[in-house]
Amino acid sequence: MALEDMVDACEAIDKAGYYSVECWGGATYDSCIRFLNEDPWVRLRTFRELMPNTKLQMLLRGQNLLGYRHYEDEVVKRFVLKSAENGMDIFRVFDALNDPRNLEQSMRFVQVAKEINPNVHAQGTICYTISPVHTVEGYVKVAGQLLDMGAESICLKDMAALLQPQPAYDIIKGIKETYGAGTQIQVHCHSTSGVTLVALQKAIEAGADVVDTSISSLSLGPGHNPTESFVAMLEGTEYSTSLEYDTLLDIRDHFAKIRPRYKAFESAVLVDTDILKSQIPGGMLSNLEAQLKAQGAGDKLREVMEEIPRVKADSGHPPLVTPTSQIVGTQAVFNVLMGPYKRMTGEFADLMLGYYGASLGERNPEVVAIAEKQANKPVITDRPANHLEPEWESLVAEASKLEGYDGSEEDVLTYAMFPNVAPTFFSGRAAGPKSVAMTEAQLKAAQEGGGASGIAGPVNYKISLGGREHTVKVEPA
Amino acid sequence: MALEDMVDACEAIDKAGYYSVECWGGATYDSCIRFLNEDPWVRLRTFRELMPNTKLQMLLRGQNLLGYRHYEDEVVKRFVLKSAENGMDIFRVFDALNDPRNLEQSMRFVQVAKEINPNVHAQGTICYTISPVHTVEGYVKVAGQLLDMGAESICLKDMAALLQPQPAYDIIKGIKETYGAGTQIQVHCHSTSGVTLVALQKAIEAGADVVDTSISSLSLGPGHNPTESFVAMLEGTEYSTSLEYDTLLDIRDHFAKIRPRYKAFESAVLVDTDILKSQIPGGMLSNLEAQLKAQGAGDKLREVMEEIPRVKADSGHPPLVTPTSQIVGTQAVFNVLMGPYKRMTGEFADLMLGYYGASLGERNPEVVAIAEKQANKPVITDRPANHLEPEWESLVAEASKLEGYDGSEEDVLTYAMFPNVAPTFFSGRAAGPKSVAMTEAQLKAAQEGGGASGIAGPVNYKISLGGREHTVKVEPA
Repeated sequence: MALEDMVDACEAIDKAGYYSVECWGGATYDSCIRFLNEDPWVRLRTFRELMPNTKLQMLLRGQNLLGYRHYEDEVVKRFVLKSAENGMDIFRVFDALNDPRNLEQSMRFVQVAKEINPNVHAQGTICYTISPVHTVEGYVKVAGQLLDMGAESICLKDMAALLQPQPAYDIIKGIKETYGAGTQIQVHCHSTSGVTLVALQKAIEAGADVVDTSISSLSLGPGHNPTESFVAMLEGTEYSTSLEYDTLLDIRDHFAKIRPRYKAFESAVLVDTDILKSQIPGGMLSNLEAQLKAQGAGDKLREVMEEIPRVKADSGHPPLVTPTSQIVGTQAVFNVLMGPYKRMTGEFADLMLGYYGASLGERNPEVVAIAEKQANKPVITDRPANHLEPEWESLVAEASKLEGYDGSEEDVLTYAMFPNVAPTFFSGRAAGPKSVAMTEAQLKAAQEGGGASGIAGPVNYKISLGGREHTVKVEPA
Repeated sequence: MALEDMVDACEAIDKAGYYSVECWGGATYDSCIRFLNEDPWVRLRTFRELMPNTKLQMLLRGQNLLGYRHYEDEVVKRFVLKSAENGMDIFRVFDALNDPRNLEQSMRFVQVAKEINPNVHAQGTICYTISPVHTVEGYVKVAGQLLDMGAESICLKDMAALLQPQPAYDIIKGIKETYGAGTQIQVHCHSTSGVTLVALQKAIEAGADVVDTSISSLSLGPGHNPTESFVAMLEGTEYSTSLEYDTLLDIRDHFAKIRPRYKAFESAVLVDTDILKSQIPGGMLSNLEAQLKAQGAGDKLREVMEEIPRVKADSGHPPLVTPTSQIVGTQAVFNVLMGPYKRMTGEFADLMLGYYGASLGERNPEVVAIAEKQANKPVITDRPANHLEPEWESLVAEASKLEGYDGSEEDVLTYAMFPNVAPTFFSGRAAGPKSVAMTEAQLKAAQEGGGASGIAGPVNYKISLGGREHTVKVEPA
């Protein structure tokens, strides 16, 4: 969503009384430079300025930062400090494998960042999944590891809407009983499967301190559960919130007006319970389908779906979330098309050999042996980032050569994170942000079934008239 | 929805293992003859034939049957018996005011109908609302009145999505404790406010036997909570269902394909928590807005919204549901435009004078006096239908004069229920059912942004051809 579609809501958001506002990090950085021609750092500073009374929150992929590979520690440090300097408060740090070694440096630098911004807060994250090796006790143990590395709060992150009411209750209760009732816990559920509203209610009963929601006009489907429903549901109970209900309605009305203009990006599915059975996230499934069709093997989808649990088990039951979902899914496709592990992707070999970190389950030794052979690399068991060379100076040097580079450390970080997208972004940045949403006029035309103008812009048609063919340009009169 | 869009799902629905399938009654009868040119009795017999293993269920407005006025007892008897004869099993009987006297005759005739169909089941209904006079104890008492008149089960009906988790728990618990754990309770919630999934979970924990849900592809918004989410959520708990999950997915896929063709009838709002504060149902509000605009008083909406609680209190706090929502809303508009009770609608006077039944709260005696004067009618305190003359014979006589009347008792009932619509329906019935949905081809065209036919109606274009500009009118050929 373009920044311009959010700024007018910021005053109300700042006033509503939220514990925090997640407004940066995750996929937003990538989206800003790839699709919106918008500087993500300008976005962060804008939010900071418009919401002076509210803690800003971001999702950080541990040693991956907001990119798709591991970064050497100096890059991690600079990213965290720059984020704090630009106004970030709560750093929600996670790793797809829940390997604490992939979080420890970011968590350490978040502590350092308190010198820049006293409101900085280190939140350690547990990625939730369901597997034969994932247990309530295991999750409680991960919480302890996060607390040991300085987490000031714990986030239980259910990115795939798999969290059922009972495990939600048991995990929160377990953490509170083991590490003290004062341990602050924030629960993050998506609403895809339609069960997580109840899971959050149970989490609250077990002592969860904060839950993540979306304003109703942006809620449900692959998003979150509606804020106002929680406020109403909890009112008059011992868990009542202190959010300003009327202000929430202002925020709701703002985004109710904006959302239809982003219709092209809506998910078709409001509730999807398949994932509770297959544990294959919906997004992963549609990616696989597209991948298979592109290779003329659209009929193999069912076989691939049956292969995924085997590949997941062979690789030690990683939670299926970016990037592990792509890595496991693609390998399952390769296995079906070419035979089991006849050809491994480089990423899957890395996953088997420990280059993404430790998995909770044991990896299949036969498949590890194949990975060693195909990738011609040894198994590693220490922290993956230990194997990286210092890279900051070379990143500065490379960024400096790019047209439109502004000389700031922020720009170097943008280049570090997205080296393929940054050059285009830097050179075209002066043109300013662009929106991918429909304009008000386009929305109106679309709602009227194309009746108003029929077409949005000039279109070239071939017209046969009286046996002769003409090429005509047509545009709304 | 046209019958033809449901028949292909019936085999799966019949196989899935539902306690019952609500498939008739309520507004469906009206919709069949008004919009679909479909005989509602054919619909009922079709469902009976296609779902031989499942209990069919209907919603019956007590002495109102499926119409909008009270009927004399003979009409009520004939409607109930004919419904049973055509295949109906569970009669869910309700009254907008929860006045047991408006239910007692229908409930009695449902007992008689067991002689026709041994599966017939009398379900007595509590309409849920929130007001200063509605209490948990009061609802428990209503349940007792329903049981006394032969209800074999109790339905707690939350038509406006007002039911919060705690009252849901307390009411169910109260009924079970007062009348025995064997008292069967079915809970019906809409999902509009986004809180009722949790209310249903609490109702289950309190001992509710059956909950109403919709298959996910038809769920949420003003509809019900998704079936599959319940199945998944309850699995592995002491409340697990015995529904066939894979069969549910077949049903889901069927309606996922159908629903987009009915897009024109979709609600724009997925979650609406306003009603929890204002207790003014969303549908009522949009009706009022339209009413006010038509009278050039669109700016009075807020005043009317503030007037509604006063009118509701004056009339003894009736639950706002058809027909009380319309009656109270329209009077509030009159009060704002012309001054308090300067002019009463006939229906509002009737409500004040007891012609719709007894209200739970005391009616404002001053307003009752005004109603007596304006309507020139006395207050009544006995059963409203006692004041009706026998009408069956005259209904038969009137129906018999209509072109296309087929001589059946079912046709007389159709005429009795909708005297303004029945004549057109009877005379045009031979043309057969029509659908209000888009065809597959229209849907495809709409999804391609008007790509197939390009435009829906005539559009003026500027066309440049050979360097010269022409203005042309274009419409689908």
